[in-house]
Amino acid sequence: MVKVIFKPENIEISCEYGDNLLEVARKANVFIDAPCNGNVSCGKCKVKLIKGKVDTKKSHHIKDEEWDEGYILACNSKVIEDVEIEVPSKLSSSMNKMKIEDLSTERDKQIFEKSKKLILDNNMKFKSYVRKDYIEIDIPNLDDNISDFDRIKRHLKNNLGYTKVFCRLQMLRKIPHILRKGSFKVTITHIPRGSDRTTIVNMEAGDTTDRLYGIALDIGTTSVAACLVDLYKGELLAKASSGNAQIKYGADVINRIIYATKKDGLEKLNHAIIHETINPLLKKMCKDSGIDKDEIIAFVCAGNTTMSHLLLGVYPDYLRLEPYIPTFLRAPFIKASELELNINPETFLYIVPSVASYVGGDITAGVLSSGIWSSEENVLFIDLGTNGEIVFGNKDYLMTCACSAGPAFEGGEISCGMRAASGAVEKVEINRDTFEPILKIIGSNQPEGICGSGIIDLISEMMISGIIDRRGKINKNINSNRIRFDEHGIGEYIVAFKEDYEIEKDITITEVDIDSFIRAKGAVYSGAATLITSLGMDFSIIDKVYIAGGIGNSLDIEKSILIGLLPDIDRSKFSYIGNSSLMGCYLTLMSEDARYKLEECASSMTYVELSVYPSYMDEFVSACFLPHTNIENFPTVKNILED
Amino acid sequence: MVKVIFKPENIEISCEYGDNLLEVARKANVFIDAPCNGNVSCGKCKVKLIKGKVDTKKSHHIKDEEWDEGYILACNSKVIEDVEIEVPSKLSSSMNKMKIEDLSTERDKQIFEKSKKLILDNNMKFKSYVRKDYIEIDIPNLDDNISDFDRIKRHLKNNLGYTKVFCRLQMLRKIPHILRKGSFKVTITHIPRGSDRTTIVNMEAGDTTDRLYGIALDIGTTSVAACLVDLYKGELLAKASSGNAQIKYGADVINRIIYATKKDGLEKLNHAIIHETINPLLKKMCKDSGIDKDEIIAFVCAGNTTMSHLLLGVYPDYLRLEPYIPTFLRAPFIKASELELNINPETFLYIVPSVASYVGGDITAGVLSSGIWSSEENVLFIDLGTNGEIVFGNKDYLMTCACSAGPAFEGGEISCGMRAASGAVEKVEINRDTFEPILKIIGSNQPEGICGSGIIDLISEMMISGIIDRRGKINKNINSNRIRFDEHGIGEYIVAFKEDYEIEKDITITEVDIDSFIRAKGAVYSGAATLITSLGMDFSIIDKVYIAGGIGNSLDIEKSILIGLLPDIDRSKFSYIGNSSLMGCYLTLMSEDARYKLEECASSMTYVELSVYPSYMDEFVSACFLPHTNIENFPTVKNILED
Repeated sequence: MVKVIFKPENIEISCEYGDNLLEVARKANVFIDAPCNGNVSCGKCKVKLIKGKVDTKKSHHIKDEEWDEGYILACNSKVIEDVEIEVPSKLSSSMNKMKIEDLSTERDKQIFEKSKKLILDNNMKFKSYVRKDYIEIDIPNLDDNISDFDRIKRHLKNNLGYTKVFCRLQMLRKIPHILRKGSFKVTITHIPRGSDRTTIVNMEAGDTTDRLYGIALDIGTTSVAACLVDLYKGELLAKASSGNAQIKYGADVINRIIYATKKDGLEKLNHAIIHETINPLLKKMCKDSGIDKDEIIAFVCAGNTTMSHLLLGVYPDYLRLEPYIPTFLRAPFIKASELELNINPETFLYIVPSVASYVGGDITAGVLSSGIWSSEENVLFIDLGTNGEIVFGNKDYLMTCACSAGPAFEGGEISCGMRAASGAVEKVEINRDTFEPILKIIGSNQPEGICGSGIIDLISEMMISGIIDRRGKINKNINSNRIRFDEHGIGEYIVAFKEDYEIEKDITITEVDIDSFIRAKGAVYSGAATLITSLGMDFSIIDKVYIAGGIGNSLDIEKSILIGLLPDIDRSKFSYIGNSSLMGCYLTLMSEDARYKLEECASSMTYVELSVYPSYMDEFVSACFLPHTNIENFPTVKNILED
Repeated sequence: MVKVIFKPENIEISCEYGDNLLEVARKANVFIDAPCNGNVSCGKCKVKLIKGKVDTKKSHHIKDEEWDEGYILACNSKVIEDVEIEVPSKLSSSMNKMKIEDLSTERDKQIFEKSKKLILDNNMKFKSYVRKDYIEIDIPNLDDNISDFDRIKRHLKNNLGYTKVFCRLQMLRKIPHILRKGSFKVTITHIPRGSDRTTIVNMEAGDTTDRLYGIALDIGTTSVAACLVDLYKGELLAKASSGNAQIKYGADVINRIIYATKKDGLEKLNHAIIHETINPLLKKMCKDSGIDKDEIIAFVCAGNTTMSHLLLGVYPDYLRLEPYIPTFLRAPFIKASELELNINPETFLYIVPSVASYVGGDITAGVLSSGIWSSEENVLFIDLGTNGEIVFGNKDYLMTCACSAGPAFEGGEISCGMRAASGAVEKVEINRDTFEPILKIIGSNQPEGICGSGIIDLISEMMISGIIDRRGKINKNINSNRIRFDEHGIGEYIVAFKEDYEIEKDITITEVDIDSFIRAKGAVYSGAATLITSLGMDFSIIDKVYIAGGIGNSLDIEKSILIGLLPDIDRSKFSYIGNSSLMGCYLTLMSEDARYKLEECASSMTYVELSVYPSYMDEFVSACFLPHTNIENFPTVKNILED
């Protein structure tokens, strides 16, 4: 056995001689970003060897001076003696620490109110699928000695019209105690189906009808966001978000799926999402709001199809292999206790149904909350999360497709990328003469990295100021200390000097990063273009564009068009609608009518498989340019560039 | 800490200074019979102190010579130093060892065939509530890429007409693997409700429709019996029975309920029935039959209302306290995994519904298998288990009541009593001149104790031969080494001298035992009399008497009438129908039609509360005599006694 100490947290772990350093870190629960999942291809798992020796090889991801300082790739190193390793990336540790923060902004609140209005405008009621009723039951005596459960059933039949009443074992065990604690005056929490059947999931002594709480949860590949809802008043009591702890097993769904096929991989991924991500968020929100976890008895969550499979511990590999078959789109009935979620164990979990292997419940939920299903106008809905999903339609039809955009919009696979959380650069302007940037950082003076909206700004500004050309290559003729090239000739632009902010390392964007991002934006643009073309239309048909996803509140539409992420149409047609998946979960939680609408949307959406369109590949290649190979598609951008 | 060693098994356990010896034995899982549950009232927890000292007191249960030999009551002793304790009773250890034996006799087989005929004669089908279907599903491709679960649903809708198909999480997790293992040719195990809905509980690759297995289980207060059934062929593959391991916490339901109210009491009782009783029986039957536990996917069990509560871990104390309210009569839906039963975890458990607090599912099941519900004639059904339950009726009506007979018919609370298992004296004849007995022992040459049928024989023979008078007191004028009196003047008859059989101790029946048994038989007789009187009838109305329960196959009807357990009517009207509860479970398992009939019986039975009949107490007191205070009720017995 040899010993590894991970700095700066001083986490110590013993392992076998020859163990892979990345695997050892995972075992020790030390987060090291490894989007390529240990293939020595992405170079993100760079760590610094402080003490001792490892069996490793230099790769092109390690610069000469880094090599001299002790930098190695964890995935490429075997532990052969006691070592001390420094995990240097602040980005990584920010993921690891799972910062949980309040999401409320003025824009969030507006979106929230607008979504609520949508429900009411469509004559749907705010009545949840979970109900509470206070009942005063006849007290038993020798002449009326039916069983406790039969007594409850009799009362519910005579007073609320339910002729079939069910409960489960754990609930049954509570009945004799609670009935007598409340002197047969109790509040039942139940889930009706139709007008005549219901299932009791909780019972409390006395009248507690004003205390009914639920969770809305959006499970993104990169970020997870949740809110704790007062179902009685409709208010949000707490909000929280964090990185998805599965990231340590791969940045995108494909790498996660591959990890799930390894020994214990599925269990580890399931553990990461439940015990390392969701339960800490639940705990935080319970603490913030002062609500006991057992009082939370409603739960709606949405995620892409892979996330839903991993949440339930269902083997996902057939999603990845042709012909790309999910095990389920609609999850069966599941109790919170079956997933060990930290809420009332009897809670019925509602998992928003997916549409296809690569169009998940998060899109269904987003379609619900964005109201496309009730729109007279033609709406293009773009979810810029990890991967990009697109919906186009109106109240008469809904078409959807998925593009392999990867995690770039949430800062993934970008060396300086991070999700839109505290410390993220969300806006960038570059002085056209000095090439000096002005940064806007979320909730901090010290930048830790750049989120999606910041990267869009940055690339757009670099293009306009001439730092990069339309291929994304850095102009070697610019004389600025912000621009430098490594020994392989790969250029980078320094967004933040470490000296200026007292940070550990310069924050830079490299040509490799820009190339990744161009491919991501190209995938989205070409996806939207193919979807609309497949209907025999073009972008001029669009009345509205809704942008959703974890790209960040500061998304700049103009700059997104400049780089060719979004089509060059009237700017007033665009709106950023935030985390529409979370909002859809909230509506589903609050309104059974909304839930029916959600299910209708899931069933009625037509999935378009882009890969069967021969034109899609051509579109994609053309879109991998700033803003596009065919500049005529972007007339306003053309004008700006010509200026 | 002090140390206790229990002989002869040499079980060693550490405990605190001053701990109660009975509790220490329970912790060590050493069985010491304690029907009174530690009140120093029954004297059954007699053990022998071999080494060391305890803090104890002599009680009237300990004879002088026993005291000198080191006998103490465990419930009355505190451990104050390291001791060695001998647990002497072979009876107790026979309970502890949980002998599991085959129950098949010729009579069993006849009863089995008769019950099957009953179902067919009433136009009911042998089609279980659990079904298997082999299906060949379309293989997915890029043009037909719906999810695995949707694919199964589509197939079942198109081919078997089920429009609503459900499954649960554990089942869902199996789907992708099994579908592909079987190349989309699989066998589903499912539980239909009506013609359009079904729930899939298992899936196997290939065609396994001929392998469908279930368990029928009777949970008695004293004995537990089970059979493993081939649902495809209807055959019994294995049978097993054992004592109920809860006995260490009390012999009857009242003492068990009291124990359940103590700290961790309910958990211990639940553990005893599931992990110490049922699971060993299941394991034994799987081994005997070569069936894998995961192939057992149907389960029907019956027990009295208290046993049902304890099986499910539901607090039973309100059954005991006025107004005697059960938490449930019909159990909710429960999966095998929720009770940790050693069968397929997805099995739906069917627990036969109870009728009232003291008329349980075992009686409902007995009514089903005995066929009273289809009888033109008036049937009196008597279950002689722990307590006695009585049903009277025919196809038009069913009346039922419970009598507090205690566990005497299964050998409980009788010093030499044991259940009808190997080593039990099941038949006794006593020579009228020599007072020497002739014993018939179940499956052995060495007697270990006497079962219910043996005690009936013994008391009847003692009465006829003049050893006891009609009050059950031993004649002091008989000169026989079989009869002796202790220092308190309490007489006993020696059934088996230890020297004759090379056993540890004489097997004797005392006046105290006889008194207990007379009260038990008095409770049953007076219960039956009151039930029939309450309908304005008398015993002459009876066309048939069915005797069920664990009293033993060798029940002698003539002798039962002689002692006044059964009414003095035409002997040809009587039949012993064995474990009618287990048989009812078998029918319920095999036939969904029979299950509907069972539920109809449970709902339609009218419960008569004996305690509200003022005449019942008088009837009981009169019946506590051999055969009865009013000998005119027993004309044939009167003639015999006068001879």
